[in-house]
Amino acid sequence: MMKEHALDGKTIILRLELDTRQAHFGSAATAIERAGGDIIAIDVIQTGREKTVRDLTVKIAETGMIAKVSDALRRLPGVRLVNVSDRTFLLHLGGKIVVQPKVPIQNRDDLSRVYTPEVARVCEAIREDESKAYSLTIKRNTVAVVSDGSAVLGLGNIGPYAAMPVMEGKAMLFKQFADVDAFPICLHTQDTDAIVATVKAIAPAFGGINLEDIASPRCFEVERRLREELDIPVFHDDQHGTAVVLYAGLLNALKLTGRAIEDARIVVCGIGAAGTACTKMLLAGGARHVIGVDKEGILTADKTYSHPMWQWYAEHTNPQRLSGGLADALQGADVFIGLSAGGILTRDHIRAMAPDPIVFAMANPEPEIRPELAEDLVAVFATGRSDYPNQINNVLCFPGIFRGALDCRASEINEAMKLAAAEAIASVVGDDELSPMYIIPSVFNQHVVEEVRRRVALAAWQSGVARRKPRE
Amino acid sequence: MMKEHALDGKTIILRLELDTRQAHFGSAATAIERAGGDIIAIDVIQTGREKTVRDLTVKIAETGMIAKVSDALRRLPGVRLVNVSDRTFLLHLGGKIVVQPKVPIQNRDDLSRVYTPEVARVCEAIREDESKAYSLTIKRNTVAVVSDGSAVLGLGNIGPYAAMPVMEGKAMLFKQFADVDAFPICLHTQDTDAIVATVKAIAPAFGGINLEDIASPRCFEVERRLREELDIPVFHDDQHGTAVVLYAGLLNALKLTGRAIEDARIVVCGIGAAGTACTKMLLAGGARHVIGVDKEGILTADKTYSHPMWQWYAEHTNPQRLSGGLADALQGADVFIGLSAGGILTRDHIRAMAPDPIVFAMANPEPEIRPELAEDLVAVFATGRSDYPNQINNVLCFPGIFRGALDCRASEINEAMKLAAAEAIASVVGDDELSPMYIIPSVFNQHVVEEVRRRVALAAWQSGVARRKPRE
Repeated sequence: MMKEHALDGKTIILRLELDTRQAHFGSAATAIERAGGDIIAIDVIQTGREKTVRDLTVKIAETGMIAKVSDALRRLPGVRLVNVSDRTFLLHLGGKIVVQPKVPIQNRDDLSRVYTPEVARVCEAIREDESKAYSLTIKRNTVAVVSDGSAVLGLGNIGPYAAMPVMEGKAMLFKQFADVDAFPICLHTQDTDAIVATVKAIAPAFGGINLEDIASPRCFEVERRLREELDIPVFHDDQHGTAVVLYAGLLNALKLTGRAIEDARIVVCGIGAAGTACTKMLLAGGARHVIGVDKEGILTADKTYSHPMWQWYAEHTNPQRLSGGLADALQGADVFIGLSAGGILTRDHIRAMAPDPIVFAMANPEPEIRPELAEDLVAVFATGRSDYPNQINNVLCFPGIFRGALDCRASEINEAMKLAAAEAIASVVGDDELSPMYIIPSVFNQHVVEEVRRRVALAAWQSGVARRKPRE
Repeated sequence: MMKEHALDGKTIILRLELDTRQAHFGSAATAIERAGGDIIAIDVIQTGREKTVRDLTVKIAETGMIAKVSDALRRLPGVRLVNVSDRTFLLHLGGKIVVQPKVPIQNRDDLSRVYTPEVARVCEAIREDESKAYSLTIKRNTVAVVSDGSAVLGLGNIGPYAAMPVMEGKAMLFKQFADVDAFPICLHTQDTDAIVATVKAIAPAFGGINLEDIASPRCFEVERRLREELDIPVFHDDQHGTAVVLYAGLLNALKLTGRAIEDARIVVCGIGAAGTACTKMLLAGGARHVIGVDKEGILTADKTYSHPMWQWYAEHTNPQRLSGGLADALQGADVFIGLSAGGILTRDHIRAMAPDPIVFAMANPEPEIRPELAEDLVAVFATGRSDYPNQINNVLCFPGIFRGALDCRASEINEAMKLAAAEAIASVVGDDELSPMYIIPSVFNQHVVEEVRRRVALAAWQSGVARRKPRE
């Protein structure tokens, strides 16, 4: 493996092929250094009488220097620059996950147990009692990470091949954070019926389905139908993962500013899949004053909307039937939750809010307002970014919520389990630690997954969807 | 993990819960030993003031003793026998494979490379050039092991849940023998169109599809359509794996008895999926005198058959249009290949064959004739069983043939590649080693996979289905 700590973001790897009759390594090294590169490691890949191949790890000051270094090498006779990679691409070579046997097969006796003929007795046991699939197959620890590649990160509809690195990354996180075995399933279809049929068909191996990066509104129907038709949890992380973590952060922000959720006036800006899921959690958690704002302004039951999600939203929020735009919604509001677009929130907007306002500006990569432009006006500020305090990151939710669901063999992930997950995440920040700069734990905080797992499994048991009593 | 070498097939594990106020461990141990069990290991699972739980590893002489030991324990007050497991079931607890990240995610920098935001650059690279999925995702090393659970081992139509242990076992073998990452996909449908649609939908993550234990005749159409519609290899192992290994054994048996395949008179008994696949390989390898026999007797072009496979068979074999039964077919035949049913071949049948006959009796678990009943009459004898010499085991084929196909990014596994695989397997038995008791290498022979890989990749390249030139 690579020397992890010696490298940084400005490190590239050059693969050079040298014709030993024409070129010397020294001249290539000199050319690289003159062009501004600093050679920090050399790996010999292949060596022969006429040709040698070496990988040079080279530090550069900025990305633009790659072209300079490449040009310098191309001018040398007998030197061929085979390719230039950076560390991110090298990490992806051949993919990021492997499938491993739990025990080695060392002899015929091992072979006869894990495969024919002995495996037949295990098959028979499951045939007689299908629930034994949970104890005798990978089902009890395995989740499918399913995407149709239609709404990947901020990249849009990039298709199943290009979506794979994200789903593999998610599988890594599942394992690393919660010891869940996750496998990426990227679908060569974007048809709702076909997605539902495919996921149903492959479900037997899995104890849960994590839907990922599926475009709205297709994601709603896919999730609804799969939840109805499968007896394992189906969880669209872009909606519910975001909602759980946001709600966790909000619980602590409200605590810090001495507010009760029932009384808080909350404005949600950007009523897409995530905005709707967040609002459902807020309502389930007791919020009574939620107002949604999107391109047509404040959503209100006084109007009719063609988009069914907006229609639902207008009917279930804004009890006072306010109308107008974002500025109207924010008059006297306690909380702004942005899931919309960069830069749409102004200092004047914030000045019109109630004292000690809470601002969650989660548009990515550019928040609704930059923290440095608002910090003097707000009590608590959170974003979706890792380079500011209080990152609302759904890595805090999905590993632990699936861990809890698998451990109690839950048939679904319901509202009670999502609320329990949010409360668990919030509880990891102790009262003595809570501050405007620390309302939500780090994704590397080791207590998060265990606390989420414990509370989620308990909530599943108490709400009647667990098929096995969770151990404390 | 378990102490692998201390245990054997007659080992059971008893989980005992003792009420410490009523029972002593000594009395339980005495009861087990009096009932004929030999305690060879004790693991304390849980211990408390009132209760202790221990796993006892116990050797027994025969399976019937489990009941005696259990009864003896149930008579003791304060002793509860929680469960009894044997080693095969213990090996299956929680399934047999895991999904592992290739590199750990130790800090925010790692996280930003394998997941957002850096992963986006990798996604973009694949979107621009889909063939990069082979270098930047798991596709280049990953195979789906797909079954609908309709014809599993000798168990028949046991469904997708009960089929999982076999497919997990196959995934273990892929990894252990050929470093291929394989993942089990057990389908909750047995409809041909739905199977085809599902496999097509999930194909992007995979570099190959291994179809397994799908009932005939559905398996033919599923394979044919997937081969036509996918650009990755689709290989029904029950047909082609068996055919390749059988053909490998036959090549060496013919060599040993000084025959040329072109001249050999070969009788294939049992014209199902495997029998047809074997015959296609024999014909591709140059055989000219193949006769098929099934329940209606010798298949001949003089008759018409309702089963399309038999019709194909009759039209492509038996050039002399022989008719009659098995005994007629075997008059003067050089080779008998049985893929039919236990005990159907008699000593008189073999006596009617040509001198030095070759008999491959591969019905499972009971061969067409037992080796001990025929060994004085035959030159070479092979079966499908591991407890006799010359086992025709498709574990010799599938790891290496997929390794070769993946290494050269083959778009299919064609006849040339299958012939190359068979020749590779045969070649591992050197001329100086070849004997009637050793015509086919052991599945643990370390040269098999490498030789199969090498020749298969070369054959793929030469036949124009490789997308990458194989390294020697």
